[in-house]
Amino acid sequence: AETKRIAIIAGDGIGPEVVAEAVKVLRKTEELFGVKLETESGLFGGIAIDERGTPLPEDTLEMCKRADAVLLGAVGGPKWDNNPKELRPETGLLGIRKALGLFSNIRPAVVFDCLKEASTLKPEVLEGTDLIVVRELTGGIYFGDKYREQRNGVEHAVDTCVYNVNEVERIVRQAFEIARTRRKKLASVDKANVLETSRLWRETVVRVAADYPDVELEHVLVDNCAMQLLRRPASFDVIVTENMFGDILSDEAAMLTGSIGMLSSASLGEGSFGLYEPVHGSAPDIAGQGIANPIATILSVALMFKLSFGWHEAGDVIENAVKSVLDAGHRTADIAVDKSKAIGTSAMGDLIVAAM
Amino acid sequence: AETKRIAIIAGDGIGPEVVAEAVKVLRKTEELFGVKLETESGLFGGIAIDERGTPLPEDTLEMCKRADAVLLGAVGGPKWDNNPKELRPETGLLGIRKALGLFSNIRPAVVFDCLKEASTLKPEVLEGTDLIVVRELTGGIYFGDKYREQRNGVEHAVDTCVYNVNEVERIVRQAFEIARTRRKKLASVDKANVLETSRLWRETVVRVAADYPDVELEHVLVDNCAMQLLRRPASFDVIVTENMFGDILSDEAAMLTGSIGMLSSASLGEGSFGLYEPVHGSAPDIAGQGIANPIATILSVALMFKLSFGWHEAGDVIENAVKSVLDAGHRTADIAVDKSKAIGTSAMGDLIVAAM
Ligand SMILES: CC(C)[C@H](C(=O)O)[C@@H](O)C(=O)O
Ligand SMILES: CC(C)[C@H](C(=O)O)[C@@H](O)C(=O)O
Repeated sequence: AETKRIAIIAGDGIGPEVVAEAVKVLRKTEELFGVKLETESGLFGGIAIDERGTPLPEDTLEMCKRADAVLLGAVGGPKWDNNPKELRPETGLLGIRKALGLFSNIRPAVVFDCLKEASTLKPEVLEGTDLIVVRELTGGIYFGDKYREQRNGVEHAVDTCVYNVNEVERIVRQAFEIARTRRKKLASVDKANVLETSRLWRETVVRVAADYPDVELEHVLVDNCAMQLLRRPASFDVIVTENMFGDILSDEAAMLTGSIGMLSSASLGEGSFGLYEPVHGSAPDIAGQGIANPIATILSVALMFKLSFGWHEAGDVIENAVKSVLDAGHRTADIAVDKSKAIGTSAMGDLIVAAM
Repeated sequence: AETKRIAIIAGDGIGPEVVAEAVKVLRKTEELFGVKLETESGLFGGIAIDERGTPLPEDTLEMCKRADAVLLGAVGGPKWDNNPKELRPETGLLGIRKALGLFSNIRPAVVFDCLKEASTLKPEVLEGTDLIVVRELTGGIYFGDKYREQRNGVEHAVDTCVYNVNEVERIVRQAFEIARTRRKKLASVDKANVLETSRLWRETVVRVAADYPDVELEHVLVDNCAMQLLRRPASFDVIVTENMFGDILSDEAAMLTGSIGMLSSASLGEGSFGLYEPVHGSAPDIAGQGIANPIATILSVALMFKLSFGWHEAGDVIENAVKSVLDAGHRTADIAVDKSKAIGTSAMGDLIVAAM
């Protein structure tokens, strides 16, 4: 049987609960498609800090490198927020992205019909919104030099934003390729009227665009993009941008759909390897109660099957199962209109598995 | 009579048209309050590039320095977008901010009842939204070193984000002071989990907060803030943040009110001097047609009276005049539901003056 190896990082908060449901989906996939999915689990994030004194233990990293793909639950929580930098979960996140060469973060922002009401946007504005933010993930101000220094006795802090042309080109090409498989529209977001890195970004986009004459390209300044996402979300198809802008805009885009608890994401490098995780966080306030919504994590598995394994049919089966369970009216508490009828994490996972 | 000197920069696109209406308001104020408002005009932005070969001519800068406050229309347009950096309107904007020491940009985002429908947000979400974004304006990545260099034959671009503790402290204190005059809530926005400048920012906020025990403080990560503005806009009172984040978040905040054509802004330095301008741009597509909405510029005059001159009564008279004209149903095309009944720029200005 075709075999794939999946590294599983449950992480903190609701991470273990939602990942457990995704694992049920893995098992069901083996049964339905006659494939073999070897899983291994590793510590990462806050729990790794507590148990191993580092957010990203070496053996977890090795486990990821051995795997064909990584499934991540969620990391972080207030418990570790005031730790020194080396002992914070986000340091592990940045470290794993860099160590695995995951230079591209892909975040689809789609509207689930059953959740339209959950958005703060008017339904008519949201209608038809289906966009992907492609965020550069291993460069820019996140990874440049950072330091403090005294100048004339005054404390200064410095962050450096660096991009080279190859870093820009690979993410931009990937975004053009994705746009080609969709509505063939690409919005490249920068601040070329102020930043040198943005000017390099824009030049590179213009150069690469020559290879994609079939894709309609627009350049949007980041401040304007923050506005246009609100004003005309449905007009965007693929948005590509650098690390810091992508952090902000992908969260804005996710929130405007009203479906943030249902959105999955992929972080990709060269080749087919990828790390898949829900967009939502570790939600420490509801952890351990068995009420978290596992759908975003389950949909992350579908994304993994499609993007890393090329298993489109298996991915579709999962997505359709989710859809049918929602259409049948089943809801976890976060998306339930009538909270008294909400079902738990595990019940939702079981229903989806049954519908596959 | 009490005399104030106002430097007037009409700028590009609809700038001259909307500023002309604001000047009518200045004259009416002289008449009503027995004050004297000496005005001088100067070239700036695209028109200065065309006529003088630089976006910020020396005599315009001198004129501003002589004045008690500056009123700016709007600058920029596609005509100058592909110019080299020294010949772009935004270079003039950054230059004037730095030269006049305008370290603080204040952008109120309020919902006008008559424009609620214009927002893409649901009215019940918007209800009660009345916030101010205080943006640091002369530091950070906007003004740090920017350069290109080859490293191992590969083109790199670099931007540097620098803040010193004094730059952070003065803007943060100002934000606390503003919060004190309002609902006493301050949200400080940073990316302290990634950036060194943000860690300096947060430390400084925490230290300064000790002097403002009456103000409720929250720290919000920039990505989360982009989401929370959408989810709970009415819960914000004053938001303070660094230059780049402020650029993005203030535009997002303005757009969510649906009132972007009506919002005014102030850029302040030490003392009472300030530069006042509408939040909207130069709208080259409708320039010269006499249909632009002058309200944001007229409200910028009200803000000038209050913040730079301490003329609260005169400011209120203008704001109330705007309100009564809107309540009477008068609309320019941008805010008219029935476009056929829209009135022009000058008619709107006249009505407001008459209502003062
Ligand atoms: C936790 C933080 C470092 C991280 C980021 O900014 O990249 C997060 O916000 C994300 O988007 O994955
Ligand atoms: C034109 C541009 C340089 C400017 C900025 O980014 O500050 C503008 O977006 C603004 O917000 O005033």
